[in-house]
Amino acid sequence: MTRPITFLSDYGYGDEFAGVCRAVIARIAPDAQVIDLTHGVPRQAVRHGAIALAGALPFTPPGIHLAVVDPGVGSERRPVAVLVADDDRVLVGPDNGVLSLAIERLGGASRAVDLTDSPFRLESVSNTFHGRDLFAPVAAQLAGGGEIATAGDPIDPSSLVRLELPTPVVYPDHLVAHVLHIDGFGNAALNLPFAQAGRLLNIGAALMVEAGKADLRALCARAYADVEDKKAVVFEDSAGYIAIAVNGGSAAEQLGLADDDEVVLRPAEAAA
Amino acid sequence: MTRPITFLSDYGYGDEFAGVCRAVIARIAPDAQVIDLTHGVPRQAVRHGAIALAGALPFTPPGIHLAVVDPGVGSERRPVAVLVADDDRVLVGPDNGVLSLAIERLGGASRAVDLTDSPFRLESVSNTFHGRDLFAPVAAQLAGGGEIATAGDPIDPSSLVRLELPTPVVYPDHLVAHVLHIDGFGNAALNLPFAQAGRLLNIGAALMVEAGKADLRALCARAYADVEDKKAVVFEDSAGYIAIAVNGGSAAEQLGLADDDEVVLRPAEAAA
Amino acid sequence: MTRPITFLSDYGYGDEFAGVCRAVIARIAPDAQVIDLTHGVPRQAVRHGAIALAGALPFTPPGIHLAVVDPGVGSERRPVAVLVADDDRVLVGPDNGVLSLAIERLGGASRAVDLTDSPFRLESVSNTFHGRDLFAPVAAQLAGGGEIATAGDPIDPSSLVRLELPTPVVYPDHLVAHVLHIDGFGNAALNLPFAQAGRLLNIGAALMVEAGKADLRALCARAYADVEDKKAVVFEDSAGYIAIAVNGGSAAEQLGLADDDEVVLRPAEAAA
Repeated sequence: MTRPITFLSDYGYGDEFAGVCRAVIARIAPDAQVIDLTHGVPRQAVRHGAIALAGALPFTPPGIHLAVVDPGVGSERRPVAVLVADDDRVLVGPDNGVLSLAIERLGGASRAVDLTDSPFRLESVSNTFHGRDLFAPVAAQLAGGGEIATAGDPIDPSSLVRLELPTPVVYPDHLVAHVLHIDGFGNAALNLPFAQAGRLLNIGAALMVEAGKADLRALCARAYADVEDKKAVVFEDSAGYIAIAVNGGSAAEQLGLADDDEVVLRPAEAAA
Repeated sequence: MTRPITFLSDYGYGDEFAGVCRAVIARIAPDAQVIDLTHGVPRQAVRHGAIALAGALPFTPPGIHLAVVDPGVGSERRPVAVLVADDDRVLVGPDNGVLSLAIERLGGASRAVDLTDSPFRLESVSNTFHGRDLFAPVAAQLAGGGEIATAGDPIDPSSLVRLELPTPVVYPDHLVAHVLHIDGFGNAALNLPFAQAGRLLNIGAALMVEAGKADLRALCARAYADVEDKKAVVFEDSAGYIAIAVNGGSAAEQLGLADDDEVVLRPAEAAA
Repeated sequence: MTRPITFLSDYGYGDEFAGVCRAVIARIAPDAQVIDLTHGVPRQAVRHGAIALAGALPFTPPGIHLAVVDPGVGSERRPVAVLVADDDRVLVGPDNGVLSLAIERLGGASRAVDLTDSPFRLESVSNTFHGRDLFAPVAAQLAGGGEIATAGDPIDPSSLVRLELPTPVVYPDHLVAHVLHIDGFGNAALNLPFAQAGRLLNIGAALMVEAGKADLRALCARAYADVEDKKAVVFEDSAGYIAIAVNGGSAAEQLGLADDDEVVLRPAEAAA
């Protein structure tokens, strides 16, 4: 039984890098189903890739999860494969944090190996394209039935690199959160689950959204469509987080937001 | 026998939305072949998506046809599945017109259901990502053998939203048509089949192309390659429509064209 | 046994062209695995597509290799299928050079056919979309077991169009090469294998990179990560060629490089 492989990277669509990795997988495990999550992670944006991967994996079939956002390729960062605690899933990629948020969400790492001298790698490993020469072949071998224990040298799971994100705080009359992710529509997700915001975020409430560069009056609602065109809305996004959108526009642009920026939400009355 | 699924959306390639929908399909119907038509429909461009879908489906295997361009997600627009008259195909998506041109081309709707309370949806349905939580699971269940009758509540097929496009007119000495679609090469397709243009469009004829913002002298020919570099050509495009191109350039840019803009074609002699 | 198909084109991701080709393949050869190498080759960039294809095919499973970058579609350029000498691979596409570098790398053409009147084409062939109407159906039939001899009319393999690229020269104290390819990261690959550069390119050596518009001091190293942020590096790229990169930046931009531009590498001492 060949297992499915999901594949996320920052290789983009202009070059053939992601396609070549898929070709390498097809040579080793011709029956493996490969599900491209996206190859459009901004170049070398480890944090962005980590968030996208952690949000996507709960919806994918368990299997092998290949993630390559790898600014340090060829340096001393370790290539790793990681078995998680909650499910029979193995994550494969560089040990630079890109796997870390997904690992946390899936119960933590129960086993990890360093792939540097993996017997599964291609005969010749380039210094710059470990996706093709190391990560894709390892993922394919694991999909075809290879054991993680035979894929590399065992390492202490607690030694894996972790991303540090800022911590949100909920006060009685306002909350302070941070930009987790801005999507292609210009919607900004914050690093606080909507369900933890308490009374402040009642559907129908008028809110002030305060960012460093601009403020915006918004309605707490279920979806963009609940507000008029060009109006701002605060809602629970598809991952369960607080998000800010402008119907038919870009909230991130209007608020001048970037990743990790602090955002304060408070009742619109209090701000008047 | 699992049926193939085609998938078209405006999710783009920068985010993992389309990939997550594919992952959801893979969990429910692991054997289903998914054919991505494109996820590059401009954001929220229902009309654009409808035209692309209608042009593509005659070339795809019959199966389940998932199309998500959904500016009204979370509002009262209905999610639907529609069986067409001409072929054993089921279209799945929002009832906002994105399916309507394909439905027309495939003989009209013979059966339709409202998916709002579909038993096939995921356990928890977000307000903003119906592609993942509702449309993809429904498509996967239908691909795996689920019956459209069990996918939702029956609705009157004549109640489905239809797109209204302008109407072209062929006069004895000229014709008035409208921009149906501008592709990535800057070629503009008009909303009139080439075969219906009559004597005006003889191969080799010199034409004036009159748009609101600019005119262009063009040759009626079989392909771009029949005119010199940077010269304009009027030809039958791959969908059978009249199209305007500039060899090695962008006709849409030179004529200042946008969707639905009126374009007049007449013999070049008459324009002198 | 259905054979795998790889697919490379300049159709881009905004339109449904590549998706429609995949749909046509799925109708004819439902079991064929299709591996998209990329559809992001710059529009009509035959040379770029040829280089990407030649670099990718050694990593793909042998099979049918569809490549469509076709500025002359509808003109007299021949559509062809080509069997190569080194491996059981058939390349399918326009005879405009896009296949030529891959054919050379795979031992040359041992057999070729002109597909103009191929019995495998769709019933109606448009003048502008041979990917859908001719190349994809031929590739699908060949993948499903069709013989190249039955796909079209035999032609002399030596008559196939070849791309001419400039010739690099290695001198005792410097080398002159040319830009083969600039990738999405702004890394520039030169048309000389790293292994042929001789003593000049010792790991750790300080180099001057001289382009027409700017010079850059660089370190000869194994990977980007071996130099500080924003510093230039000369290294062996993943295809085995000499490449120039700026860690965290764009070498192509800083040097003002374009395809085929001449680049001189010499020891930094000699330049002082």
